[in-house]
Amino acid sequence: MKKILSALFALPVCAMAQQTGDSVMIRRLSDEIMRNGKAYDLLYQLTKQIGGRLAGSPQFAQAVKWGEASMQRNGADNVFLQQCMVPHWVRGGTDRAVIMEVDGKKTSRQLDVLALGNSLGTGKVISSEVLCVADFDELERRKEEVKGKIVYYNAGFDPTNIKPFVSYGQSGIYRRSGASRAAKYGAVGVMIRSLTESTANNPHTGAMQYNDSFPKIPAIAVGPRDADEVWALSRKSRFSMGMLTYGYFMPDTIGHNVVAELKGTEFPDQYITVGGHLDSWDVNEGAHDDGTGVVQTIEIMRALKAIGYKPKHTIRFVLFANEENGLRGGTKYAEEAKAKNEKHIFALESDAGGFTPRGFSLGVNKTQLAKVKSWLPLLSPYGAEEITEDGGGADIGPLARTFGTPVGELNPDPQRYFDLHHARSDVFENVNKRELLLGAVNMAALIYLVDKYGL
Amino acid sequence: MKKILSALFALPVCAMAQQTGDSVMIRRLSDEIMRNGKAYDLLYQLTKQIGGRLAGSPQFAQAVKWGEASMQRNGADNVFLQQCMVPHWVRGGTDRAVIMEVDGKKTSRQLDVLALGNSLGTGKVISSEVLCVADFDELERRKEEVKGKIVYYNAGFDPTNIKPFVSYGQSGIYRRSGASRAAKYGAVGVMIRSLTESTANNPHTGAMQYNDSFPKIPAIAVGPRDADEVWALSRKSRFSMGMLTYGYFMPDTIGHNVVAELKGTEFPDQYITVGGHLDSWDVNEGAHDDGTGVVQTIEIMRALKAIGYKPKHTIRFVLFANEENGLRGGTKYAEEAKAKNEKHIFALESDAGGFTPRGFSLGVNKTQLAKVKSWLPLLSPYGAEEITEDGGGADIGPLARTFGTPVGELNPDPQRYFDLHHARSDVFENVNKRELLLGAVNMAALIYLVDKYGL
Repeated sequence: MKKILSALFALPVCAMAQQTGDSVMIRRLSDEIMRNGKAYDLLYQLTKQIGGRLAGSPQFAQAVKWGEASMQRNGADNVFLQQCMVPHWVRGGTDRAVIMEVDGKKTSRQLDVLALGNSLGTGKVISSEVLCVADFDELERRKEEVKGKIVYYNAGFDPTNIKPFVSYGQSGIYRRSGASRAAKYGAVGVMIRSLTESTANNPHTGAMQYNDSFPKIPAIAVGPRDADEVWALSRKSRFSMGMLTYGYFMPDTIGHNVVAELKGTEFPDQYITVGGHLDSWDVNEGAHDDGTGVVQTIEIMRALKAIGYKPKHTIRFVLFANEENGLRGGTKYAEEAKAKNEKHIFALESDAGGFTPRGFSLGVNKTQLAKVKSWLPLLSPYGAEEITEDGGGADIGPLARTFGTPVGELNPDPQRYFDLHHARSDVFENVNKRELLLGAVNMAALIYLVDKYGL
Repeated sequence: MKKILSALFALPVCAMAQQTGDSVMIRRLSDEIMRNGKAYDLLYQLTKQIGGRLAGSPQFAQAVKWGEASMQRNGADNVFLQQCMVPHWVRGGTDRAVIMEVDGKKTSRQLDVLALGNSLGTGKVISSEVLCVADFDELERRKEEVKGKIVYYNAGFDPTNIKPFVSYGQSGIYRRSGASRAAKYGAVGVMIRSLTESTANNPHTGAMQYNDSFPKIPAIAVGPRDADEVWALSRKSRFSMGMLTYGYFMPDTIGHNVVAELKGTEFPDQYITVGGHLDSWDVNEGAHDDGTGVVQTIEIMRALKAIGYKPKHTIRFVLFANEENGLRGGTKYAEEAKAKNEKHIFALESDAGGFTPRGFSLGVNKTQLAKVKSWLPLLSPYGAEEITEDGGGADIGPLARTFGTPVGELNPDPQRYFDLHHARSDVFENVNKRELLLGAVNMAALIYLVDKYGL
């Protein structure tokens, strides 16, 4: 009986001692970040002194220099740039849309709109009757009516989804492919309801793609309150609208990933990656998307160094170029890794906002999933209570696809994200310092555990 | 073997069917609230059309009328008022503090301050050298230096606490009793660091209490950025300050709890209470504290009625008078219940802000705790993932103390609460519609489960 008992207790006691050591280390990381964290001040610099930084823009080049210097100043063993070609889309002017005629009567009701990223403008007013449809199904039913018109899609978020990312998954297709779906039937322009449930009227931009088989017509997103008015108007009246956008592409240009390292002491040739994307849309400060991911990345490095942690594996801290309209940064990172035959054991991204952390979404196998779940008692005091299996971030996707690298993404509280995402309101003032730092705490803890125990 | 198996499976299958029925009902409640919720518009009315509403103020009387009408309009079977006497503190003017002299040199540096609630002002400038102490320990060590001075307490929140309510618990005593602790040694006024980690400079008011044994000296809270400056100044210089406050008490006056009911079909004489407090501080709109609790309370009633739910027990929806500086509303509610010998099976409050719900804190026995925890799989899809045992809300405390009624409080995400709590920034604009409604969803679900299964 004695033997059996000791056998029964040996593992738990051992595991408990281990967990105690880990919990002490994670507490040190947390205290360092919550007490001395630089992420909020770094975010101020990136958002207020540089601002919006779309790939190819002068601001993006500035951000690369800032990223390099910030990494050096905050404890990197070494910092290098990875050059890649990036698309260079330019908004080119102030996007406009005006309701010009309702039931034959002239009017002039300006709507708050933004051209969709990658869309092509003409710099001339396109004016036409507006065909308002709920969704693609209605578009298909009414395809004979489309020719020569501006098509408006009212497909908004479903408010009954508890997780707004589900709504984004459902409605995102209208932004991405709504233009070509309407151009196929002869539309001259498209307008979508902004992808948000915000109670403000800010329009939300974001990437679209043309299908080369059809004319490349202008495409805009309209603010949600204006969208409500447009939809209500369409239920009782015929109306026409003028729209004016200027978007165009410059030739592809040079961009850079900024990569910093803390060198591994046992396995210097095995890599753990932590990152966020340095580019943002042009109409805001790219605060939650993805300034917060960028500064959390730098913060984690700073904190590991500050507490004197010596990682077993080499930890890479990566500020990716061009997530928003090309993913060229993430692609380049995976290509370089492949060319050098690097061994990547884990990659983690923060690109869902700097809100209170709730957990992680992982793209891993069952064994790895169980391993991470076994760490939840160590993580949950800091906020991470839920592990989901919906994959990692966009920028580390190419790494996962190239090597099968296990990946993960920080899941912050998602309720406010789409109020700000791709809108003018995604500014520094809408980031909370404690929430931002807590995200870094949870990521740092996970990185520490993966570095110590592998995955 | 067969028998044993069926015995083993009988309960789970039955429980599963039950859970499916419950999850359908909770989904209906959620869809109703997220799709048709009125809480956000009600909050607009309460905050923008009435505003700050301290007990005894004309705005509080307006809020009672508004509450009564809103309850009637949103489906109450009956609405009544419970009259109680409430304290009537008046700020009386614009609170001011100015650094007047540093190391013997005249200066004039205005600080952003608010008098603490219940504190007495003089309407005349009190000017004196300032003794800056970290905490009560330092005050005690330096008690000989206190006489004739203004005492400043720098005791702020500990940023390494992951849950800011822990910090509030630690530092709140400086607001509540800092004045009398300093008056005991002859201080002529006190200033505290505002109870917040906000990066803004807003001062945060809140209730204090005098110890009748010592002089009742003026007491103010200073904004956190000004507090940093004051503390830094005190490390290298002697300085004096002038402070001017006007606070006074009018005679106690009449206030009201607003009570609405949905009548029970099986146990009409057994009560479940849901509530928030209708009063707020005078310097803001009382949005998160506790406008959100008030409108969630009305919303839950509206939604239960809208989906045609017939409660077994009578559900009371209570807007409590005077939580902030007296608790007279909650006390009255318990007194009335006792006088009528009512049976109260559960009471739930929302008074920690209208942020994304994370769970509930309960004041219940072990059996009841286990029962509520067994419902977590039904609640967690809506956000409630954690049940803690730190008790229920302030207003339902008297009920718990009188009858031993099991109580609970909604635990929303706590990170932003103390940025706004008792500060001018606690306004409608800082409430997010989805987060507010999700709080109501989680509370409605818990009320439904308690009504159906008891506790």
